[in-house]
Amino acid sequence: MKATFADRLAEAVTSRQSSLVVGLDPQLEKLPEELRACAAAAHVDPRIAAAAAIEAFDAAVIQEIAPFAVAVKPQIAYYERWGPAGLTAYEHAVARAHSAGLLVIGDVKRGDIGPTAEAYAAAHLGTGLAPDVAADSERGHSLHADAITVNPYFGTDGLQPFLNAARERSAGLFVLVRTSNASAGELQDLPVRGQPLHEHVAARVVAWGQELRGSHGYSSVGAVVGATAPRELARLRECMPGTWFLIPGVGAQGATAADVGPAFDRDGLGALVNSSRGIIYAYGSPKADDWRRSVREAASRLRDELRTAAMQATP
Amino acid sequence: MKATFADRLAEAVTSRQSSLVVGLDPQLEKLPEELRACAAAAHVDPRIAAAAAIEAFDAAVIQEIAPFAVAVKPQIAYYERWGPAGLTAYEHAVARAHSAGLLVIGDVKRGDIGPTAEAYAAAHLGTGLAPDVAADSERGHSLHADAITVNPYFGTDGLQPFLNAARERSAGLFVLVRTSNASAGELQDLPVRGQPLHEHVAARVVAWGQELRGSHGYSSVGAVVGATAPRELARLRECMPGTWFLIPGVGAQGATAADVGPAFDRDGLGALVNSSRGIIYAYGSPKADDWRRSVREAASRLRDELRTAAMQATP
Repeated sequence: MKATFADRLAEAVTSRQSSLVVGLDPQLEKLPEELRACAAAAHVDPRIAAAAAIEAFDAAVIQEIAPFAVAVKPQIAYYERWGPAGLTAYEHAVARAHSAGLLVIGDVKRGDIGPTAEAYAAAHLGTGLAPDVAADSERGHSLHADAITVNPYFGTDGLQPFLNAARERSAGLFVLVRTSNASAGELQDLPVRGQPLHEHVAARVVAWGQELRGSHGYSSVGAVVGATAPRELARLRECMPGTWFLIPGVGAQGATAADVGPAFDRDGLGALVNSSRGIIYAYGSPKADDWRRSVREAASRLRDELRTAAMQATP
Repeated sequence: MKATFADRLAEAVTSRQSSLVVGLDPQLEKLPEELRACAAAAHVDPRIAAAAAIEAFDAAVIQEIAPFAVAVKPQIAYYERWGPAGLTAYEHAVARAHSAGLLVIGDVKRGDIGPTAEAYAAAHLGTGLAPDVAADSERGHSLHADAITVNPYFGTDGLQPFLNAARERSAGLFVLVRTSNASAGELQDLPVRGQPLHEHVAARVVAWGQELRGSHGYSSVGAVVGATAPRELARLRECMPGTWFLIPGVGAQGATAADVGPAFDRDGLGALVNSSRGIIYAYGSPKADDWRRSVREAASRLRDELRTAAMQATP
């Protein structure tokens, strides 16, 4: 029996001494020009050319950041953008990250009613109920991540198929609780019986995760909590002591490693911190020389800053 | 300049005398055995075989229901389930429905922060900002629908890229307001300042749609409101008089055409009623003979029932 996602994550964080997740948000116009030129020369179809440039970029980024990160978080929107060829590039990113020894958090933010959520869960996590056709495809690739992000708006019966898949496949979920964008509070902070809405969502997330608790005290059902709202982050940490947080908002969105200190427990566990644009576009201009080194150094630096922040959280 | 989505929809409903949307939810195990056998004989890769069976099924369903429906609503989860080949089948469903003169509502329920929402909007609606590479692909196919469903959890800045794309491409949005599943109320009905949360979402949807109002008084920003909660449906109709409702829940989920009567205005506009499983699996067993006829008759019957419901709503 494969260890639970929560335990695999705790072990990876401890052995790699890293809480860093690198977000793969491959926006074509920001990729190094050499990669785009190469892909455009090789492919007539612009969608296939875009996907090829993205594949080359992902391969390089994964290679550079692998020593410093615990996971990658490919954002499927940037792949879906290019249709079926883009989805193939997403599958290859998943496979490449796994080969590099990294966990993969599929940032898909899916959510729907029961039977549809089952299809999404089968797509992104697989299913233990039947021989897994999706994983048996000719080239052996699939969309299957170790964990995915999900949207809670549908409530329990919308989450259940994802919870079932997480149990059957030893996978994980990160449910949106308090996001990092400027308008997040419009709905998420609305007052419900004296508490912001997102704390009610948090209570659901804790309940959903009860049966998926691993040996380190953490559940495989985690929460997405933005670093850009430090007060809410600290309060949610108190409400959800056994919940892994996936924390976006550091880097391009303005928060720093120090802002996420309160999210770590005394063992340095409990928080995964994502940076996407701050790392993968650390080279600035698409014309930059030695862009790989900029990516590597940005990952190394943030990994170290997060270790410091985690150690300062220890009493 | 292409007419707004809201106007194109109003004209289609009037000229076709139909408010019926047929949901394409192709679940492999429910497809007619003859189609699955054919696809399995032709393709070694199980994902490609699944996608081929789905393509054959979609082609037949679209042909049968085209005389009775105003739109199809492909649910992307059932395509994504099969990876890149599934996404190609989704693109072909979009193209086939357009060729049959139907509008296409992509049921994708995407939602994310700004730059990511831009990528989703470009994927599913296209963009008017740049030469549209995605629509120029070799085979001329794309994921682009006439409208898509979106999730409001991120608030205004998460919606803005979709609103921009809707304006630039004369496309539409249907924002989740009150869904049709049993657990919908867990979050959506939570009390906020004396009103259920979904009414606050409704107020946002009206505001988001203000600038996209067409000549029939309706906005291109619509709302998803389930038929399974008739009290909430009636109340939302009062709060949102200029908003197209996309109404799931009729058929397999238990609601009837009569339940949606209050959603129509006196011209028979304002409501699109979706049935997925109740129509596309009307034949019952995958071994059924003449399954096409069952699909056609189910579509014809529900179209008529909806016309009756719409006429009874007229004072």
